[in-house]
Amino acid sequence: MGKDFIVVPDGTVTTPKGFQAGGLHCGLKKTERHDLGVIYCEVPAAAAGVYTLNQFQAAPLKVTQESIAAEGRLQVMLVNSGNANACTGRQGEEDARSMRAAVAAAFGVKEHLAGVTSTGVIGELLPMPKVLGGIEKLPARVSIEGGDDFCQAILTTDLVKKETCVSVTVGGRTVHIAGAAKGSGMIHPNMATMLGFMTTDANIESQHLQKLLNDVTDSTFNMITVDGDTSTNDMVVVMASGLAGGDALTPEHPDWEAFRAGFEYVGAYLAKAIARDGEGATKLIEVTVSGAESRDAARAIAKTVIGSSLVKSACFGADANWGRIIAAVGRAGQPVNTETVDIRLGDIVTLEQSRPVKFDEEKALEYLKGDFVHIHVNLNMGEASATAWGCDLTYDYVRINAAYRT
Amino acid sequence: MGKDFIVVPDGTVTTPKGFQAGGLHCGLKKTERHDLGVIYCEVPAAAAGVYTLNQFQAAPLKVTQESIAAEGRLQVMLVNSGNANACTGRQGEEDARSMRAAVAAAFGVKEHLAGVTSTGVIGELLPMPKVLGGIEKLPARVSIEGGDDFCQAILTTDLVKKETCVSVTVGGRTVHIAGAAKGSGMIHPNMATMLGFMTTDANIESQHLQKLLNDVTDSTFNMITVDGDTSTNDMVVVMASGLAGGDALTPEHPDWEAFRAGFEYVGAYLAKAIARDGEGATKLIEVTVSGAESRDAARAIAKTVIGSSLVKSACFGADANWGRIIAAVGRAGQPVNTETVDIRLGDIVTLEQSRPVKFDEEKALEYLKGDFVHIHVNLNMGEASATAWGCDLTYDYVRINAAYRT
Repeated sequence: MGKDFIVVPDGTVTTPKGFQAGGLHCGLKKTERHDLGVIYCEVPAAAAGVYTLNQFQAAPLKVTQESIAAEGRLQVMLVNSGNANACTGRQGEEDARSMRAAVAAAFGVKEHLAGVTSTGVIGELLPMPKVLGGIEKLPARVSIEGGDDFCQAILTTDLVKKETCVSVTVGGRTVHIAGAAKGSGMIHPNMATMLGFMTTDANIESQHLQKLLNDVTDSTFNMITVDGDTSTNDMVVVMASGLAGGDALTPEHPDWEAFRAGFEYVGAYLAKAIARDGEGATKLIEVTVSGAESRDAARAIAKTVIGSSLVKSACFGADANWGRIIAAVGRAGQPVNTETVDIRLGDIVTLEQSRPVKFDEEKALEYLKGDFVHIHVNLNMGEASATAWGCDLTYDYVRINAAYRT
Repeated sequence: MGKDFIVVPDGTVTTPKGFQAGGLHCGLKKTERHDLGVIYCEVPAAAAGVYTLNQFQAAPLKVTQESIAAEGRLQVMLVNSGNANACTGRQGEEDARSMRAAVAAAFGVKEHLAGVTSTGVIGELLPMPKVLGGIEKLPARVSIEGGDDFCQAILTTDLVKKETCVSVTVGGRTVHIAGAAKGSGMIHPNMATMLGFMTTDANIESQHLQKLLNDVTDSTFNMITVDGDTSTNDMVVVMASGLAGGDALTPEHPDWEAFRAGFEYVGAYLAKAIARDGEGATKLIEVTVSGAESRDAARAIAKTVIGSSLVKSACFGADANWGRIIAAVGRAGQPVNTETVDIRLGDIVTLEQSRPVKFDEEKALEYLKGDFVHIHVNLNMGEASATAWGCDLTYDYVRINAAYRT
């Protein structure tokens, strides 16, 4: 099966029919950059979300889950940067509810059609007058040109905007799937929060959207790591306006696989963009584990390799240090045949059937100095495979994260 | 119960009765430093060992396990640095067996009374002529003054020697327990291998020694992390000569707890010394988790906090960033009441019942700038507690591990 989707140049979260977006500065960031953003849909959109597994889940995540639980729809999704509203107790939850009520009132929708999320410093109460003042001004700031403004509002110390859009043909009609994300880095370095926002004009019910989001999250957003730390605020939300029309998309629809492929492309694009823009990163590292007995085993091993500080440091130093890779494979807690492992760096074979292979060190150095490193581990045990993404561990990672908060 | 043991000033692995040790340079290290060491006991000593959980266990570990399995005794324990003899296939195993045969012959003991271990670069075959030549010279180099020479032979890029010795009164007799360890750092930076060697003149059978070593390893060596990577060569071996005499030590012996306390002190001392001397470290970090529902939960949470790159970077930067600590607590996969957590840095309270507490930032900065940081997390759920040790994440860690191998 080939790619059944087309990447839309300069596509944003407002490219799918029915969506507008915008952003503004309400005073949470010290400089005049956007710190409040919103996605608005003309109609109540089918919605689905995935949330951090950290037990200290931030207040806004709870409120957004409640909203989606009500009827599986969202019409407006609010986000602020600069303050995570996490570990803020009862007052934090009240603040998240006030934000939801305010944004619902501003856009004239029912409260349970509004979601809220936050990213930034942990353990400080939101300056609510600033936030509420900003929310009031949002309806005048949204438009179908507002995708970039929204992207600015979710950035903190991210170096680049992360957004993409594809189009897929479903039942003869053009359907768009778009996404924007924020990765690791904050105005007060504190937590690497990942936020993802996806929009589509596909006609799809919430239950199918949720299932698809769960699957795609497992193979994309859940396969990246910058430093192994899971934020209290991680969340990916998708909204489907249905305005592309046509028959409802279900797994039985003849074009489901094409839609799924486009959806997965958007998820993987954003996930890789987050990894590449990890704090201090100079390169994207992709780890593929093949020949595993199960997909879960392949995923666990790929994530252990990509999460190894020693592997990450070696990539920063352009060191073809396969010993660190095999050591990470061996401690992943998954079935491995210690006699049959192959390791390649790009197309340079360094280990074959668990035996070291003489390779051209100069060529390896040249390859590892690039801004993309592919590590391929073949266990030669079974048919399952998985891919994970991360970045190198650099002086800048330490500098950024050793910086004093205030 | 107070401390029933006394630390012996300048004690080494040869302080317990019956032990001699030594080291020499056989050519595995490029400079003229010791790279081959041995501990020899006048009599076959009761022995016990714990080994890496990494599936790619190095060849010498298998050979040592076989030796101990034969009759629970070791009389000579050989170690080389500069080459790990890991991922070296059948030839590596043959080489480990040749080393065992050679050291047994050199000291005139049965082969199954000899153990071998290696640390250094992965995936290269040992230069056996150099190793065997060195082994031949070892008997002339061992003495009861040789503890320091042995310590030198196990060091690689470790900055400081790690050894200690305590004495305990057992049945009215003085019993010694000593230990030496190597931590993270190598001549070819490749793997952070932990090796521990303990000696005692206690009269104790192998089975009780093994049980005690398992217990103590769980609360000491297994509670440290430098970077979360588990070496292929990690190993701790203990040898008991029995030459202190007296009734055999068993858990029923009236002085068992005193012996156990001394044994645990030696294990904890070496574990902390390894953490403090972690690659690039500027400080020792100790994390205590109390008020947990179970000891396993307390241990898992303590290890997650000490393993967090964000917490480690914050300690390097002297940043009282408790948000990173609570986030690590929340992702440890253990039961936590999100409403009842207290966090202290030294004696500075930063979180009480999961609510942020205003604290003196200047005082916190002063405390965190020191070379020891104690993080105390009280879950306020139960009675169990655990302590873990690690070090900060620094520019030097990145520098050391980004360095090209050759």
